[in-house]
Formats: sequence, C-alpha cells, structure tokens
Amino acid sequence: MAKAQLTISSKNYGAWALRGWLMCRFAGLDFTEHVIPPDDPAMKAEMLLLSSSMLVPSLQHNGIKVWDTLAIGEYLHEVKPRAGLLPADQKARAHCRAICGEMHSGFSALRSALPMNIKAHFPGFKVWSRAVADIERVVAIWKECLVAHGGPYLFGKTPGLADAMYAPVVTRFLTYDVALEPVCAAYCQRIMALPAMVEWVTAAREEPEEIDELDAEF
Amino acid sequence: MAKAQLTISSKNYGAWALRGWLMCRFAGLDFTEHVIPPDDPAMKAEMLLLSSSMLVPSLQHNGIKVWDTLAIGEYLHEVKPRAGLLPADQKARAHCRAICGEMHSGFSALRSALPMNIKAHFPGFKVWSRAVADIERVVAIWKECLVAHGGPYLFGKTPGLADAMYAPVVTRFLTYDVALEPVCAAYCQRIMALPAMVEWVTAAREEPEEIDELDAEF
Repeated sequence: MAKAQLTISSKNYGAWALRGWLMCRFAGLDFTEHVIPPDDPAMKAEMLLLSSSMLVPSLQHNGIKVWDTLAIGEYLHEVKPRAGLLPADQKARAHCRAICGEMHSGFSALRSALPMNIKAHFPGFKVWSRAVADIERVVAIWKECLVAHGGPYLFGKTPGLADAMYAPVVTRFLTYDVALEPVCAAYCQRIMALPAMVEWVTAAREEPEEIDELDAEF
Repeated sequence: MAKAQLTISSKNYGAWALRGWLMCRFAGLDFTEHVIPPDDPAMKAEMLLLSSSMLVPSLQHNGIKVWDTLAIGEYLHEVKPRAGLLPADQKARAHCRAICGEMHSGFSALRSALPMNIKAHFPGFKVWSRAVADIERVVAIWKECLVAHGGPYLFGKTPGLADAMYAPVVTRFLTYDVALEPVCAAYCQRIMALPAMVEWVTAAREEPEEIDELDAEF
C-alpha cells in the first residue's frame, strides 16, 4: 500500500496547509509531504483566495483523494477513530463541528487583515475594526470550549480538529501582537509548544526567502 | 421531547437557510421553522457576510444546538443515518465532503455577483469574469458526480448533502439566465422539481416585499 501523501504549500504563509497537516499529525497518520513550489499557481491561489482550495491541502490515502480541509478532517476521523479528532460526546461533537465550520467559511476580516506569517513579528500592530470583532468571536469560542471541556485543548485532553482549525489564528495573534487575557494567552502557548507545531514553525522559519516575494502581491 | 426547530431567514434571499432547510427535509427530520424577522440584524448579517453564520441556519434538537450549515448536515447524518445524506461508500463520501467544503468556503465571486434572489429573473444577465470561473467549476463538479454515480442526484438515487449545498446555485443559474449544457440544465430542473424545493420556492415568491428593501444595501 502506498504511503499517504499530503500536498501542502508554504509553511510560513499556508494557513490551510497548516490545518490539514496538523490534522494528519493529530490523527497519527503516517504520511509524506508533497510541497508545491512557490511559483506554482496553486500556491498563490491558496493564499490569495484565503480559503481552502482543491489543491492545497489535499490528501491521497488508500486510493482516495480528499481535498478541502474539513473534508480531510472528517476522513481522518473515519480512518483513525481512536485519535479523537472529534469529541466522543454527540453534543460536544456538534459544537466542535459548528466552530470548525465558522472558521472554515468565516472570519474574512481576520484573514485579510492578519494573514499568517510565522516568521514575522509586528509589535504594536494596529488591528482595524472588523477584524477586532473577529478576534472577539475567536476569544469567546476558545473561552467557552476551555470552560466547558476543562482544557487543556478546546475539546479536552487531546488536540483535535478544532485545535488544528484555530492553530493558524494562534500564530497570527503572536505575529500581530494581539493582547489576550491569560486563559487565551496560555492556550496559545500550549498550542505553540505541541511537538507538531514546533516542527512546523521551525520549518517555516527556515523556508527559502523567494516565497516571500509573493507577499508583495497581497 | 420538544420538536426540532430550525432558525432561518428570508426564503427568497437566504441561501444558507435554504441549504440547512433542505438538509432537514432530505433527512426526514420533523421540525418547525423559526423565521427571524427582516429587521433582525442576523438577517442582514447572513446575506451581507455571504456565509453561514452562528444564527442562520441553526438547529435545535434534543437539547443540542448546532449552527453552521455543514455542521448541521453532519449532525443530521448522525441522527438520521438511513436517510443517506452522505454516500455509503467511503470514497464517494470523501468526494461528497470535498465538494461540499468547496461550496462552504469558496465561490466568493459567484456569491457576490449572483446573489440568490428566487423571485427575480434577469434574461441575458452579463456574468463578469471571475464568476465565470466559479460557474465552470460548479459545472465540472456536477458533471463528474453525475457521471461517476449515475444520477439522478449528485451522489446517486436520493438527494443528499451535496444537492442541498448546491441548490442555491441552481436557483441562481435560473435567476441570472446562465446557459448550461443539457446534462446540467436537466439536473437543475430535477432539483427545482423536488417537492421540498417547490414548497420553498412557493414560500419565497409569497414573501412580503419589505424584505426586498435590504436588497438595496447590497
């Protein structure tokens, strides 16, 4: 059987790629990465469209090709049910899918005002008003989940689908110096300390500079 | 046990509401509608944000509140597994979720250039270029599904999640007079002939005119 393969883009800029990659890691999937080159139109498309695309991320596994980040998450939950990507409790599972869906189709102001850029740090960055409302909604979601399920992750003891979906927001809050109350700041530190995140962030920082040239066209 | 309740907005303009409502009908759920008034900020938010929101559609069932259209679909598939909202075959199910995910987070040009407006008809409407690419992608998705699964619906013999997700696009193609090849035109006619669609469209046409005033602010 061929090993699973996940197609991703830039590790510094590719928020959807990060989500799909974390889901595969949290699921315990054995996979190789196929990184599309920076001059590939799909790379630019992913970042400019600010949404999941047909090409990035996409997963090939057992003769099945799945694209779209949420579809990858549901597929992984089916093939690796013991990983707990989704909560075991039905009510919690519905809540998890609802907030993952919000991230999947919404938060457009947050995406365009604070694009993922792991290498960068902008102390005192001024966030414009519509993105402020998005940040407030993210904070409300995190607090509700951490209180309801007792942490340390959004739906309990193991990182799952929701943590993967919100992980690029964690990096944005750090990049753009967004002030957070202690419970949310601690959650961000916890996500950044996950071995998978450390590995991704290290690779993002080492990414060749030519990818940065795309940034000028944003 | 309290009857399930689905919160929706305008039947003429509310594309996300239509998706959630069709899913409930396809699942065979016994539910009541809670229609938010046209002056409710949530009504405007749904249409201006062009995406699923926390408020519309949202489903309350057995003490569980689910919002976000895809999360509602997955929830209904769990509680009504025999309805076949998602295909029984794993590969087809992954494909179904992928194209539903594309509709959930993408097609922004199609959404903004051709907003759902069931009452209206614009013969010879000029579609601008980015929306043309979206239309071509929808057509490619439909043809691939109809060929692979034999129709008459996107994943076979019963209407399901994917048909519900693409149903507002069917109404847009009719409203904006989009020329389609026979296989896609026939699919549109089939969706419009579903009893649930006939019921929705009839209600949309009878909707009070004051909702139309919101239209001016688009």
